[in-house]
Amino acid sequence: MNKKTVGLSDTFKGKISPKSFTKNSIKGTKFTIAISSAKGGVGKSTFATNFALALKSTGSKVGILDADIYGPSLPKMMSINEKPESKDGKSLVPIKQYGIQCMSIGFLVDEETPMIWRGPMVTSAIKTFTQKVLWNDLDFIVIDMPPGTGDTQLTFAQEIKVDGVVIVSTPQEIALLDVKRGIRMFDKLKVPILGLVDNMSFFQSDDGKKYNIFGEGGVEKVASDYKKKFLGKIPINIDLRIAADTGKPLFEKNPNHKISKIFSEIANRIKGSFL
Amino acid sequence: MNKKTVGLSDTFKGKISPKSFTKNSIKGTKFTIAISSAKGGVGKSTFATNFALALKSTGSKVGILDADIYGPSLPKMMSINEKPESKDGKSLVPIKQYGIQCMSIGFLVDEETPMIWRGPMVTSAIKTFTQKVLWNDLDFIVIDMPPGTGDTQLTFAQEIKVDGVVIVSTPQEIALLDVKRGIRMFDKLKVPILGLVDNMSFFQSDDGKKYNIFGEGGVEKVASDYKKKFLGKIPINIDLRIAADTGKPLFEKNPNHKISKIFSEIANRIKGSFL
Repeated sequence: MNKKTVGLSDTFKGKISPKSFTKNSIKGTKFTIAISSAKGGVGKSTFATNFALALKSTGSKVGILDADIYGPSLPKMMSINEKPESKDGKSLVPIKQYGIQCMSIGFLVDEETPMIWRGPMVTSAIKTFTQKVLWNDLDFIVIDMPPGTGDTQLTFAQEIKVDGVVIVSTPQEIALLDVKRGIRMFDKLKVPILGLVDNMSFFQSDDGKKYNIFGEGGVEKVASDYKKKFLGKIPINIDLRIAADTGKPLFEKNPNHKISKIFSEIANRIKGSFL
Repeated sequence: MNKKTVGLSDTFKGKISPKSFTKNSIKGTKFTIAISSAKGGVGKSTFATNFALALKSTGSKVGILDADIYGPSLPKMMSINEKPESKDGKSLVPIKQYGIQCMSIGFLVDEETPMIWRGPMVTSAIKTFTQKVLWNDLDFIVIDMPPGTGDTQLTFAQEIKVDGVVIVSTPQEIALLDVKRGIRMFDKLKVPILGLVDNMSFFQSDDGKKYNIFGEGGVEKVASDYKKKFLGKIPINIDLRIAADTGKPLFEKNPNHKISKIFSEIANRIKGSFL
């Protein structure tokens, strides 16, 4: 590209060369880890909150950015009802809960108010959250991504240095299609994939019988087909759901619960790949 | 508004009056029923396909438009692998499967290709699907909506005469928040809500014990709080999931299955409110 091209003005060259994006870390944070799934309703937010708490328990400073503008879950899952302060009318101070710095569109509006927004408004909100939040000296910021492969995913991939993404899915075939689309998107956008998690893997009834409600082994197979790491299985667990619904993630409530231990393993594994 | 306003030009009046939208039925169809949930992963597409087949079994002509651009499920759920024909290079002929006219972005691209699109592209695809598809003499077109309260929802609400929306949800608190946001959105956009369905209501193990994996009674309570109809409960059922995963909806495979009968009841109830 250093060869001189006769007859092409710099302006024109600028126009035809691919648009380049400067990717910066989110200010006040070291590593950005996105939790994604392409498909909604696979337990991504439950994963993100428990994973963040598990990371914190290893001694790291952790924040969570809820990037789901249409369906924020962080206020409910972390019992946060206050509005963030702004000292200068421009920046926002994250809200600390259970030792985690948190930010969500849900802190700024009533929880039942729908954000009936077209894409460019969503992009603008994401930019505010990545540029104007006063994250304080975090080792890791965990991004709870919305479903889809649209504005939010593109904005992060183009403007933020995302250090890795964890893809969470349930194992049914229909969900796996979205996982494959997600993998291809992140590969195309050159965002490193840290690995895949099989969530709601199976259900065990009180008599010990296992039911593969959503099928079996699908996520692990996709990981292997696409040469990505498989990070583990998390079974369907009523304690985990109740904890999320009552605003105190299971890891915070009971770090020794068998499910909490799975989150610890995954957190340690991911942390090990960074520090 | 007929009062003459002195000193205000027609141009200026046009500028300050609220933008009005012309709402038309989708060409070739009588009634448009949207299946929505605000949240993903609650079984909306499984509901939409089985509901459409149940409607068809009552003698109606039915089509399904998969409006989930980022996560199309229709090709897989209805075993459709062919591309739609276009006789004039502009319009698209829907693909008929199990007696249902179908259209999905998934028919036009490889199923693992992600649509990495910003909002305006999504809007443009939705317009093509509602204006350029040659739906043939349908009584009902069932729209499988994507999660969220964004571009697709706004485009339908502003430009299409949507005759009613069925809101599907799982009963956990976190999902109900999205349901409330969805109800508020449709009320605000003046789209009539036909009722709410509680999906993945409970799981029954082989010994007959019921497990409220995702909680209990939440959807019915929201329906009552918001003065909307409650249309019924659909339990978690492995046959239903397997049928979806193998490309033949349960209602098509076995219309006498206990779950198929629930779809019949809901379809009859909804049809009764139109015809």
